[in-house]
Amino acid sequence: MKVAIIMGSQSDYQVVKKAEQMLKNFKVDYETHIISAHRTPKQAESFAANAEGQGFGVIIAAAGKAAHLAGVLAATTPLPVIGLPMKSSTLDGLDSLLSVVQMPKGVPVATVAIDGAENAALLAVQILSTADDGLRQAIKDFKKKQEEEIVELDKKFREKK
Amino acid sequence: MKVAIIMGSQSDYQVVKKAEQMLKNFKVDYETHIISAHRTPKQAESFAANAEGQGFGVIIAAAGKAAHLAGVLAATTPLPVIGLPMKSSTLDGLDSLLSVVQMPKGVPVATVAIDGAENAALLAVQILSTADDGLRQAIKDFKKKQEEEIVELDKKFREKK
Amino acid sequence: MKVAIIMGSQSDYQVVKKAEQMLKNFKVDYETHIISAHRTPKQAESFAANAEGQGFGVIIAAAGKAAHLAGVLAATTPLPVIGLPMKSSTLDGLDSLLSVVQMPKGVPVATVAIDGAENAALLAVQILSTADDGLRQAIKDFKKKQEEEIVELDKKFREKK
Amino acid sequence: MKVAIIMGSQSDYQVVKKAEQMLKNFKVDYETHIISAHRTPKQAESFAANAEGQGFGVIIAAAGKAAHLAGVLAATTPLPVIGLPMKSSTLDGLDSLLSVVQMPKGVPVATVAIDGAENAALLAVQILSTADDGLRQAIKDFKKKQEEEIVELDKKFREKK
Amino acid sequence: MKVAIIMGSQSDYQVVKKAEQMLKNFKVDYETHIISAHRTPKQAESFAANAEGQGFGVIIAAAGKAAHLAGVLAATTPLPVIGLPMKSSTLDGLDSLLSVVQMPKGVPVATVAIDGAENAALLAVQILSTADDGLRQAIKDFKKKQEEEIVELDKKFREKK
Amino acid sequence: MKVAIIMGSQSDYQVVKKAEQMLKNFKVDYETHIISAHRTPKQAESFAANAEGQGFGVIIAAAGKAAHLAGVLAATTPLPVIGLPMKSSTLDGLDSLLSVVQMPKGVPVATVAIDGAENAALLAVQILSTADDGLRQAIKDFKKKQEEEIVELDKKFREKK
Amino acid sequence: MKVAIIMGSQSDYQVVKKAEQMLKNFKVDYETHIISAHRTPKQAESFAANAEGQGFGVIIAAAGKAAHLAGVLAATTPLPVIGLPMKSSTLDGLDSLLSVVQMPKGVPVATVAIDGAENAALLAVQILSTADDGLRQAIKDFKKKQEEEIVELDKKFREKK
Amino acid sequence: MKVAIIMGSQSDYQVVKKAEQMLKNFKVDYETHIISAHRTPKQAESFAANAEGQGFGVIIAAAGKAAHLAGVLAATTPLPVIGLPMKSSTLDGLDSLLSVVQMPKGVPVATVAIDGAENAALLAVQILSTADDGLRQAIKDFKKKQEEEIVELDKKFREKK
Repeated sequence: MKVAIIMGSQSDYQVVKKAEQMLKNFKVDYETHIISAHRTPKQAESFAANAEGQGFGVIIAAAGKAAHLAGVLAATTPLPVIGLPMKSSTLDGLDSLLSVVQMPKGVPVATVAIDGAENAALLAVQILSTADDGLRQAIKDFKKKQEEEIVELDKKFREKK
Repeated sequence: MKVAIIMGSQSDYQVVKKAEQMLKNFKVDYETHIISAHRTPKQAESFAANAEGQGFGVIIAAAGKAAHLAGVLAATTPLPVIGLPMKSSTLDGLDSLLSVVQMPKGVPVATVAIDGAENAALLAVQILSTADDGLRQAIKDFKKKQEEEIVELDKKFREKK
Repeated sequence: MKVAIIMGSQSDYQVVKKAEQMLKNFKVDYETHIISAHRTPKQAESFAANAEGQGFGVIIAAAGKAAHLAGVLAATTPLPVIGLPMKSSTLDGLDSLLSVVQMPKGVPVATVAIDGAENAALLAVQILSTADDGLRQAIKDFKKKQEEEIVELDKKFREKK
Repeated sequence: MKVAIIMGSQSDYQVVKKAEQMLKNFKVDYETHIISAHRTPKQAESFAANAEGQGFGVIIAAAGKAAHLAGVLAATTPLPVIGLPMKSSTLDGLDSLLSVVQMPKGVPVATVAIDGAENAALLAVQILSTADDGLRQAIKDFKKKQEEEIVELDKKFREKK
Repeated sequence: MKVAIIMGSQSDYQVVKKAEQMLKNFKVDYETHIISAHRTPKQAESFAANAEGQGFGVIIAAAGKAAHLAGVLAATTPLPVIGLPMKSSTLDGLDSLLSVVQMPKGVPVATVAIDGAENAALLAVQILSTADDGLRQAIKDFKKKQEEEIVELDKKFREKK
Repeated sequence: MKVAIIMGSQSDYQVVKKAEQMLKNFKVDYETHIISAHRTPKQAESFAANAEGQGFGVIIAAAGKAAHLAGVLAATTPLPVIGLPMKSSTLDGLDSLLSVVQMPKGVPVATVAIDGAENAALLAVQILSTADDGLRQAIKDFKKKQEEEIVELDKKFREKK
Repeated sequence: MKVAIIMGSQSDYQVVKKAEQMLKNFKVDYETHIISAHRTPKQAESFAANAEGQGFGVIIAAAGKAAHLAGVLAATTPLPVIGLPMKSSTLDGLDSLLSVVQMPKGVPVATVAIDGAENAALLAVQILSTADDGLRQAIKDFKKKQEEEIVELDKKFREKK
Repeated sequence: MKVAIIMGSQSDYQVVKKAEQMLKNFKVDYETHIISAHRTPKQAESFAANAEGQGFGVIIAAAGKAAHLAGVLAATTPLPVIGLPMKSSTLDGLDSLLSVVQMPKGVPVATVAIDGAENAALLAVQILSTADDGLRQAIKDFKKKQEEEIVELDKKFREKK
């Protein structure tokens, strides 16, 4: 299964590409699109309606300010939708975060931290690993390696002092 | 021209009916609907696409929490859309307000105060008055009467003391 | 009908001129003034009292911090007033936004996003289109073109990868 | 010199009357009015323009939400204006506070705590005491008595245990 | 695969049981536990370490205030962890939300709205449906039924008027 | 009567000197001191206790973060105390503002906008003008000149276009 | 060594008495006083100056709104001061929290959660345990018992289902 | 007794080293480690479990965003834990502060200001001084010197003018 990454504006790509890199590390296929909930509502609806049929297993939606993209996709697709709130220029991302996470009853969005593109990708991998033992093992390896790196970092930091 | 009032949930009607009452005072026709941006996205899209053709001149959209309703309607209709953020149970309406007002470039929503149903209706009347001298006069009369009432209130308050 | 753009301080012009450009795109006449609710209250009152008579159909008021300009104009004019909260130097625009949008019952201000000058202009055009079929069509064309641009952007982005 | 207490709505009186009581304790004359910056702008302007001539030495302005009353009065009167932000129903008073205190350069408002009616009155007395040695002494007596009361309270609390 | 629901305190059950009810509707097995990240850290670590082996496919973690439970479980388990921030008594749930959603790089938590227990369960079902076509269909049916209910609600509301 | 300007840290002087300049414009004597509520509590207490006797009529206290300076001075002196919250490095001045303005009953602080040094000085002049007709006239002249400058600014801005 | 509990107002006792109860559980002596940073500044200074000499080892200071009490005591005493921010009536405790925790460099206050009276007491016991092995052991026992209670609670909750 | 300084990420060292410098000034031994609550949970648990036995008397935990490090350590160790919230890139440190300070009943964290590394160290010294008269005297000397420096600073500032 592939991951769809939808961003509301091309300017979001600076952050979104970190999600792409993380998916590459896990050898998970993905497709990135620019679709705006407000400026291309038909494309958003159409993408969400067809996503499952086109082989996507999870959708990451990155948007800022009154960030409706994740919610709009989740309204139509049965797939799990991960919301990635982007830091906005005026309210430090609080508007983006609340617009993504505070979804009303019946239509959840799995929200990660503001600008948390790597975690959006990791969550997508964790979700896909529900049906893929190889990915599950890769997640375990990732967690182990992450732990070892910090232990190593701590060791070097301690030696340098 | 009529005013469309769309609310995301029936529980919003306690506040929304104050908008209806204000429109009645101005003898402006309106229609109230329950349409959810997230639970009935097709109805939202369809209403927005047809609103102008059905004689509506402005749309009031009332919703709470991650309140996408106004933005979703504004994405499709060319009509002015008034966003009425509803006080939510957990963040005192801040989430609703930011989700409604912080719209990205290209798709404005004319936002009023949290739970400000009367003002949503008044703004709708002001917008319709652009093409209706009678309504423009009614707005002037309303403002004058409102002023007189407070002057009278002040007078009575001063006498009582 | 013309659009009045009132800004509370000349320093707001950096943002406000984006509203001018948008109005030019729609061939809508406008006049921009520097009037302060607090430092030139008589000019504010006078402008609001005469705006309708001078051919204005809607007023955009841009101000920051304890941003009373939109509310002060709306207190006097029967015209719809669009509030454009400016990002402030100390509270990231939250003060401006709340001062503009949280208007008490009886005097609405149609508030757009913090620093959302283009949307303020678009909303003004939508309001004027209530009485102007040409403008209504222009809004539809704008929305269509905006959609096409993002579809094209997405296509190019997809090809480049 | 008298103190003017202006409230934006009669519903504010529940809090405002605590300011009246405090002024009575200091035997300072006052007059309370209901004047709305938005619904009775002419009355607000007129009151501010005439306040000094009518023997007022300081103005207390109580208002909630997008609370422009204090700023609107301060725009016109040369007298010191005390802003009393009222707790609002939706944002816990944060909107009122920011709308009152964040005044732009050139027009200060002396802001007290949300719902801090007693302190608004005390500040008014402190300001008037600039020209009234009797009031200055009364302030000193008030501070001393306040201190003694708490010392006494502490003593009783300690004995009870 | 089962769903684990972990709550930080028994008082959270009033909200958490709505998640249980939603899982029952989807005939998804679940187990609910009281485990505190701070008061029973060993139990938290042990549950997270063994969850996959015991047949759990996803974990829902409900906690309030400085809500570390979801993050602490996610630190150890490779399973996707859904964070359910609980409304707290003093900061309206903002503390819970930020403590759950703002996870650092490397350890995501799939956060839903404050007190959004039904959505936490729905997201769990969506995640499990990655490996279960029956559940995927059930999600589609749920979305369709939800849509029909609101269409019906709107119809009745319109008739009553 | 003189104005005392107390700042909690020398780094505040960048902002505070704007208050000095404003007082110079009004030919009001002032003295500026560095006194910290937390690091030099005895100096703060001593200054407050002696301020009236040394010919001060009002105190401006500038401080940031948990800004107790204004409150600590107001606890001891009978003089009106103006609180000037300084923008802090981590919470954008919200901490400073709330620490200054939210004073408990019995000890008011006349708070101005975050970093609003000019307004702190203007408020000080307004307070002193209670006992000084010359200063009262100077305030009127200042307001008039300020108005004329903006009218002129508007005129030039209009001509340039 | 004893613990001093200072509260800014008698109304804080409803919360503060939970700290007393916790200290009783640990058989730690304490004394509770009503002292206001703003209304009884001399008493606050005097208490802080003498606290160490009178056998106190740590001070808990409970206050709300612009809560300066902890900071004012910490300015004078060399003892560790624990700040307990009280939930305020208008800003949900955010003002109290920021006024207590955001202390400037040089004068720390050990801040606990809003209304977190039990934790203030526990922290006091932990601090005293630095010099008291019996208390250190009591803390360990407390943590163990707390863990066992939740494990038991979980067991009963699981059985009931 | 030594002080343990634990930071969640190497990037925190820029701030954390100010705590080291302060401890050096007091000749207090310390050890600094990089341990992440989320990425190295076993190391965190293990460090907390052994800290007392290894001669540590207090732990400083520095972390940002959903900053669980201090709480995770406090869950296991009986030692007092000082939480140092780090300014985060998206919410200005509010997320870090709330995640650290709003600990639930039973597990306190002694929280200092955002980025307040010096105060974290000073608080650690104050805590250790409970069992060390030399350190107590050093704290008194520090406070006295700090006072003298500001008095001197004020004197020089006054002379320069």
